[in-house]
Amino acid sequence: MMTPQPDNWTLYGQTFQSRLLIGSALYPSPSVMSEAITASGSEIITVSLRRQSPSEAGGEGFWQQLKSLNKTFLPNTAGCHSVKEAVTLAQMSRELFETDWLKLEVVGDDYNLQPDPVATIAAAEQLIKLGFKVFPYCTDDLVICQRLRDVGCEVLMPWGSPIGTGRGLMNPYNLQTIRERIPELPLIVDAGIGKPSHAVQALELGYDGILLNTAIAQAGDPVMMAAAFRDAVAAGRQAARAGAMPERQTASPSTPTLGMPFWHQQ
Amino acid sequence: MMTPQPDNWTLYGQTFQSRLLIGSALYPSPSVMSEAITASGSEIITVSLRRQSPSEAGGEGFWQQLKSLNKTFLPNTAGCHSVKEAVTLAQMSRELFETDWLKLEVVGDDYNLQPDPVATIAAAEQLIKLGFKVFPYCTDDLVICQRLRDVGCEVLMPWGSPIGTGRGLMNPYNLQTIRERIPELPLIVDAGIGKPSHAVQALELGYDGILLNTAIAQAGDPVMMAAAFRDAVAAGRQAARAGAMPERQTASPSTPTLGMPFWHQQ
Amino acid sequence: MMTPQPDNWTLYGQTFQSRLLIGSALYPSPSVMSEAITASGSEIITVSLRRQSPSEAGGEGFWQQLKSLNKTFLPNTAGCHSVKEAVTLAQMSRELFETDWLKLEVVGDDYNLQPDPVATIAAAEQLIKLGFKVFPYCTDDLVICQRLRDVGCEVLMPWGSPIGTGRGLMNPYNLQTIRERIPELPLIVDAGIGKPSHAVQALELGYDGILLNTAIAQAGDPVMMAAAFRDAVAAGRQAARAGAMPERQTASPSTPTLGMPFWHQQ
Amino acid sequence: MMTPQPDNWTLYGQTFQSRLLIGSALYPSPSVMSEAITASGSEIITVSLRRQSPSEAGGEGFWQQLKSLNKTFLPNTAGCHSVKEAVTLAQMSRELFETDWLKLEVVGDDYNLQPDPVATIAAAEQLIKLGFKVFPYCTDDLVICQRLRDVGCEVLMPWGSPIGTGRGLMNPYNLQTIRERIPELPLIVDAGIGKPSHAVQALELGYDGILLNTAIAQAGDPVMMAAAFRDAVAAGRQAARAGAMPERQTASPSTPTLGMPFWHQQ
Repeated sequence: MMTPQPDNWTLYGQTFQSRLLIGSALYPSPSVMSEAITASGSEIITVSLRRQSPSEAGGEGFWQQLKSLNKTFLPNTAGCHSVKEAVTLAQMSRELFETDWLKLEVVGDDYNLQPDPVATIAAAEQLIKLGFKVFPYCTDDLVICQRLRDVGCEVLMPWGSPIGTGRGLMNPYNLQTIRERIPELPLIVDAGIGKPSHAVQALELGYDGILLNTAIAQAGDPVMMAAAFRDAVAAGRQAARAGAMPERQTASPSTPTLGMPFWHQQ
Repeated sequence: MMTPQPDNWTLYGQTFQSRLLIGSALYPSPSVMSEAITASGSEIITVSLRRQSPSEAGGEGFWQQLKSLNKTFLPNTAGCHSVKEAVTLAQMSRELFETDWLKLEVVGDDYNLQPDPVATIAAAEQLIKLGFKVFPYCTDDLVICQRLRDVGCEVLMPWGSPIGTGRGLMNPYNLQTIRERIPELPLIVDAGIGKPSHAVQALELGYDGILLNTAIAQAGDPVMMAAAFRDAVAAGRQAARAGAMPERQTASPSTPTLGMPFWHQQ
Repeated sequence: MMTPQPDNWTLYGQTFQSRLLIGSALYPSPSVMSEAITASGSEIITVSLRRQSPSEAGGEGFWQQLKSLNKTFLPNTAGCHSVKEAVTLAQMSRELFETDWLKLEVVGDDYNLQPDPVATIAAAEQLIKLGFKVFPYCTDDLVICQRLRDVGCEVLMPWGSPIGTGRGLMNPYNLQTIRERIPELPLIVDAGIGKPSHAVQALELGYDGILLNTAIAQAGDPVMMAAAFRDAVAAGRQAARAGAMPERQTASPSTPTLGMPFWHQQ
Repeated sequence: MMTPQPDNWTLYGQTFQSRLLIGSALYPSPSVMSEAITASGSEIITVSLRRQSPSEAGGEGFWQQLKSLNKTFLPNTAGCHSVKEAVTLAQMSRELFETDWLKLEVVGDDYNLQPDPVATIAAAEQLIKLGFKVFPYCTDDLVICQRLRDVGCEVLMPWGSPIGTGRGLMNPYNLQTIRERIPELPLIVDAGIGKPSHAVQALELGYDGILLNTAIAQAGDPVMMAAAFRDAVAAGRQAARAGAMPERQTASPSTPTLGMPFWHQQ
């Protein structure tokens, strides 16, 4: 058996092994958060300026704890409802978290908390001109994804389903279409992942990674669930590389022939 | 972080760690088979007397190779169409493979290759009286499963979908019903698993293991796919133990509150 | 436009136009029941001896009302748990309802109220020898269906999903397999239909009819829902006869060419 | 039984009974088209200026035939790829078809032929200022739908799935969200409907109508399929008004009690 090839991937020029990006909210306690993040194997953590400003009282300890994990931070603009708000918050985040990476979220509706496609494109365009490396959270819409690529996003993050629902991949057909039509960019399913099987399915479709928070933070045992997702992305990625058998309409015996060694069967 | 508890399971008094049972047919070559089985982490291999009789010419080398893997064998009665045929083959298998373990398959239809529920119950009853440890391959029918339990089966193996189709879990509702109503026995999804996501889903439903063959043997890269399934069953099992978040109808923000450390949020 | 061909179907030698069989339980009142049955266009009504004995006090008025609708009755053995119980009740039903038609139900589990496949086959065999025209309620299992056919059933009634759940067709693949493999008998989906779309789907799969009760009786407006199901079976049946377009993986314009009359397009 | 209330609906001030809008392309012949449209009961026909210009040779006879059906025309901008192209074609259509109704289509991708969300909003805004009554074909995205409403569209037409695929409602969750959040406008599912069961499902979700073409025009028997869809929209609409039973997780007997008249049961 040969040593397996390293299977890294690259986001804005930085190389990673883990294909699981993880959030830092909603955990039962800071120590569970640290343990879960460690168990997940994630190398990238999303952080929210709105809640986690290093300079704020109370946030300082949390921030030190996050920093001690020695991961790459991906600040987000969660809770922004307009281009202007997102751009302002992004600039504050860059200064405070000392990174030009940015998960861009512009909420378009308070019911399903979905991204506003039009505002997200506009904000991405401005932010890229300002030197940000934008990770846009978007719906599973091919044309929106193409426009985000065209304004300079080098990674795209379509949703699986509305944030916090845990419904998994609502529309695998759309996600597959985006994968086929935008082969040149890394694609991450962001939001809606509720179980490890959803994560595996995303990777099997050829997605490069997933980003989640609630499914781990609100599991019965967040640390064990983090390990489950670590194994799930490993499984899904290997499956995509190995090439799955085709689905068949009718049954086919796995022991088809009598009296012949199996490697002579057709 | 505490050392995780060992998570073994028991089949007819024997204890195992791996929750993946693997078949020995349809691989591109004997050496790929050996590598794939090793990569899968499986401890139990199904073998077919019809194809793999140790005493037959040609089969001898294959048999030696399988034996050298040092795994537990589970002989099957693949290809049998009647109670009598299955019982006769089972007795030959016991002698040749030197085990009273038996995967019972009685084919009921040549189109979907499904088990014959009535004949499977009758054969199981006879075989158990003859001292066999029967692993019955059956459909996802609660009452059939209950009857197999009542005649003495200590493990049940409902299908996911017809063998060789790779369609995954056709009827999760039925599988879940069986799990809820038969909590006392180990349950294994046998047949129809096409991708690692299917395996994870079975374990997430509370199933104790899966049995597959084609999905690994006929993958583009069987060895890598075997590793994918190894990780998939690990992921699914941990997810079942950790307890998944509930699925929600409406969105829920993962960063809900401003200006408060997250562990003070409700 | 030609006059459409009459599209009758035949059950045990009797010819019907409506493909909707309807139950007589759970309505808000007897008069709503009568109105709903009339609106449904059904020609066959299932009745339960256990609740609707013509000879019992209280039942007499109900019975007279049902009789006044001038429909064909299909007595059922709802609530029976054994072959003996079902055969006994069937014989009482034959005498009281003056018909040898019988919907055979032998409950196998009190949780999902599914038929007991083994007992249903045994009871069907006995009842057919006693001269009954048996309509067996069974699971969506091809081999069980074949055995019911082999003991003399001239119609089969696999379930869509557990009775009263309204979950529709849990396993379209299994239902389609039964249709393909048993082309010679009329097939009716019985139980689990919750909405008209489920009924249409059953007919589109090539099923000859559907039987339901709760979906109409417990609708907000049972009479209007009965009319909805009447139109649904008409729609589904015509769709099956007309032949649906094939499902496609990729988009295809409905206005593909410029400057050419559409009937010259390929 | 009371006479059912008339169940009309209103589009830009015009009242209709039929909830099926039909296309005029891809039929095997003009006479089959006429027969199918008549059988469908549709009162609104989409027409494409690009193919069906009344002034073009060859188109004249087709145009006369369409006019003789005495329906309301809904010209579309099929095949346009930009705001400017769509606005220009719309103006030509208004003059030639003598109506300010317009089905707005701006193609965003040649693979899935989906609408371009950004261009569709921009074009709708311009066209409404020019006095058009715009029926925008859009994806199933709540925020895009809200923006189209906000620029003055009084009806919205999200897709079911890509045009010509016949895959039905890919994402019922999204469609339901749009219905719940935009209760004030008529909503039509446009594109992707392949079978009558899909149409029923759309109406059951509370949609007011459907628009299709290929599913009828390319059916084995377009005229019979048109009648199937006529009955399907009637079924779905009545189901939505009648109120479906709730889906249940576990079985519930339809004949629950012995010895009691059914209307005294709980």
